[in-house]
Amino acid sequence: MHAEVTPSTLDTEQRQRLFRELQAELPQEGLLHTTEELRPYECDALPAYRRLPMAVALPETLEQARAVLRICRAAGVPVVARGAGTGLSGGALPLENGVVLSLARFNRILEIDVDNRCAVVEPGVRNLAITEAAAPHGLYYAPDPSSQIACTIGGNVAENSGGVHCLKYGLTVHNVIGLKILTIDGELVTLGGKTLDAPGYDLLALMTGSEGMLGIIVEVTVRLLPRPERAQVLMASFDLVEDAGRAVTAIIGAGIIPGGLEMMDNPSIRAAEDFVHAGYPVDAAAMLLCELDGSNAEVSEQIMKVRDLLLSHKATDVSTAETEEQRARFWAGRKAAFPAVGRISPDYYCMDGTIPRKHLAMVLNRIDELGREYGLRVANVFHAGDGNLHPLILFDANVAGELEKAEELGGRILELCVEVGGTVTGEHGVGVEKLNQMCVQFSAEELTQFHAIKAAFDPESLLNPGKAVPTLHRCAEFGAMHVKNGQLPFPDLPRF
Amino acid sequence: MHAEVTPSTLDTEQRQRLFRELQAELPQEGLLHTTEELRPYECDALPAYRRLPMAVALPETLEQARAVLRICRAAGVPVVARGAGTGLSGGALPLENGVVLSLARFNRILEIDVDNRCAVVEPGVRNLAITEAAAPHGLYYAPDPSSQIACTIGGNVAENSGGVHCLKYGLTVHNVIGLKILTIDGELVTLGGKTLDAPGYDLLALMTGSEGMLGIIVEVTVRLLPRPERAQVLMASFDLVEDAGRAVTAIIGAGIIPGGLEMMDNPSIRAAEDFVHAGYPVDAAAMLLCELDGSNAEVSEQIMKVRDLLLSHKATDVSTAETEEQRARFWAGRKAAFPAVGRISPDYYCMDGTIPRKHLAMVLNRIDELGREYGLRVANVFHAGDGNLHPLILFDANVAGELEKAEELGGRILELCVEVGGTVTGEHGVGVEKLNQMCVQFSAEELTQFHAIKAAFDPESLLNPGKAVPTLHRCAEFGAMHVKNGQLPFPDLPRF
Repeated sequence: MHAEVTPSTLDTEQRQRLFRELQAELPQEGLLHTTEELRPYECDALPAYRRLPMAVALPETLEQARAVLRICRAAGVPVVARGAGTGLSGGALPLENGVVLSLARFNRILEIDVDNRCAVVEPGVRNLAITEAAAPHGLYYAPDPSSQIACTIGGNVAENSGGVHCLKYGLTVHNVIGLKILTIDGELVTLGGKTLDAPGYDLLALMTGSEGMLGIIVEVTVRLLPRPERAQVLMASFDLVEDAGRAVTAIIGAGIIPGGLEMMDNPSIRAAEDFVHAGYPVDAAAMLLCELDGSNAEVSEQIMKVRDLLLSHKATDVSTAETEEQRARFWAGRKAAFPAVGRISPDYYCMDGTIPRKHLAMVLNRIDELGREYGLRVANVFHAGDGNLHPLILFDANVAGELEKAEELGGRILELCVEVGGTVTGEHGVGVEKLNQMCVQFSAEELTQFHAIKAAFDPESLLNPGKAVPTLHRCAEFGAMHVKNGQLPFPDLPRF
Repeated sequence: MHAEVTPSTLDTEQRQRLFRELQAELPQEGLLHTTEELRPYECDALPAYRRLPMAVALPETLEQARAVLRICRAAGVPVVARGAGTGLSGGALPLENGVVLSLARFNRILEIDVDNRCAVVEPGVRNLAITEAAAPHGLYYAPDPSSQIACTIGGNVAENSGGVHCLKYGLTVHNVIGLKILTIDGELVTLGGKTLDAPGYDLLALMTGSEGMLGIIVEVTVRLLPRPERAQVLMASFDLVEDAGRAVTAIIGAGIIPGGLEMMDNPSIRAAEDFVHAGYPVDAAAMLLCELDGSNAEVSEQIMKVRDLLLSHKATDVSTAETEEQRARFWAGRKAAFPAVGRISPDYYCMDGTIPRKHLAMVLNRIDELGREYGLRVANVFHAGDGNLHPLILFDANVAGELEKAEELGGRILELCVEVGGTVTGEHGVGVEKLNQMCVQFSAEELTQFHAIKAAFDPESLLNPGKAVPTLHRCAEFGAMHVKNGQLPFPDLPRF
């Protein structure tokens, strides 16, 4: 068991030497170290955590990236990999005594292989750029985080990102078939490839979602899917959140896997409607957006079935988008929901947890109660089909103590997810944000196993130390409340 | 780097003490150690390798399994986990100085959870028994190895098994969502569960396919799928193997993912037809079976499209099974292909390798040439859609040297798979059979990383030592011919 690592800080002279060594290997403008240059790197998209790194390295080639690792390792300096910095859990938060290794210049699409339906790309390629490059062949890359215009595929792999379409098409881990990584020793390791299965331990899946703690991703091979012939979306309103939850269970239970199945509660509906005028039902307690995709015949058949299921589960209104323009309008409100909530509250804190689908209604009610207990409003807009919740906790950082209250409420919500048999993350990773909740999710034995894996790749813990997996010491301080499938503090929760 | 482990053999007195300790913890008839009792455990379904273990333990409870691990660990005795013993690569081959830990009595279906569309089962439950238990709810478990009547889900997880339907529905790793394992220390570790994503490193995927070398599987949660409304199969004949290969690429390229897409060459067609009289085209060079499944509308549409594609890729005949009975008959020949080949040759050796789909025709021709070079016939019957080859090498073990020739030819075929960018296994695992080919597939750095993972779970290498991952020493002796994506000994192969 290794302790929380805090490598010794370099003195000024040692720093200067490190910078000289790095600069000698990197291109002109490939090393940043003034405060002004470092400022854009002080946080990712979880701005509650900020730290200036010692330096940022921007290699352009494999050899340069390898040199950065070699130099940092020799100096005992930790390395934090970074894509576009759009992560929501602080996974790319720098270390003051560390170097940020930006993969932004690894931005070439190396191959669109139509026969084998895959793309080989560098890690700094944007998620959407893969789909754009594949589009002329009628193909696309399925996982679509809402940041897909900006986020990079390397970051998606590091955080095992999701998106609206993951219900049907899987998370990043289900769509990545090959990786090349550099180990902390600078060795190039190839995991998976263009074929079905790879022998040996499944290091490909292990690397996916490992938040830059096991190796540096330098090449990614992703599966491409044929663009479906047709996609059509239904919008349904409900008077009760419970009914919407039951309709979700019924659709999946009927054997239909929609391309997307999203739920919004009343505060989210109102905020989105005020913002983009999508025609949403502002008086509904909840609404569902259900997109069916596939062949023409398949979609026609499923639209009918889903419509019937929605109506028989007490939807008060169901409308079908009949044109592409209408479909885009239905989605516009959902897609703008986060910024829309940003307009009705000075600040908000977006949580990410996952629960077994059948507990949806009960957990939403419980979140509502918790919000009242803390005196904070919570808006819910989320991937209902997956049971992947995104409660948005509204607060005002300028009111003393509200940020802390919001963070505490967020923690309580994640613990609630664990209690009903769920997990503390759906698609945003653990980063620094959810370290304490990992103590709730996992036992000491399980965390010990995680640390052994980390040590097998990175014995000196120089790759993004302090993220994703808490030390046992930290859990002991936090109270190590491992409640999985056991104690139920809330008497109203059913046993499961 | 740990060396190939050969723990010291126990003397008679130490053995007797071990047996007494084990017997004290196990039920009556839960410990086998006479030669007669041990005989059924000397091999799995790769009978070329045989060894009698020291003892077989048959625990019935978690506590008993934990006691077996504790006692073996204290005595420094290796443990080889075993399900039904249907594996094809020798993964369950015993060690003379080791104990076989049979999970056969862990055979309860714990839960069919219809709302969350999953089943929780013990590892000794047979693959088909899961589907049978789920059937009343209209659900089934997708991966279907040809041994599915007999093989256990624990063994499927250990070997990451596949089957005909894996093209559309994925391998075992894509259908297992939770595991409970015992570590060599006897700790119970929970990996994944009923929800979408789990935080932390993806140990669930890492465990899948790890061939009993990282932990003992004691509980498995699998995803269940709704039984498709309809399934229909097409049979197509071709005069040239190349044309069949191109038709496969064209079907997948058109964005159609069949439920199954299987290819048989002329020797396989003849053997199967002689055996089960399925109505196969005995004069065709190759035939394809393509099954479409889904909703009624979807299948009707795809059947038309696939038929057109087959005809435009020079199929000489295409027939559609119009009844369930006819569909069963089309499949009967494919399902009986291995025993059918067993009727035309005293012995055969079934290989398992995977290649990028587009190289199908070229690789089949090259296998034919290699067969002639070795003077051995090769029949091909395989999962064409996945590029997962199963060459059956025909030989006679009673002819001196033929077994060795068959094994050498098998090795050459696997190396050919690696050369064209493929892998040495598709769905049968590595076991003892393909240790040398792992040296071809992986570099020393990659193998070193595998050993580090093993050591992170099992530092004394007591869990199934000597399987799946070769030592660097072994690779050096074999000649360490790591040829991946590089040297091409055959001048007629295109660069890729």
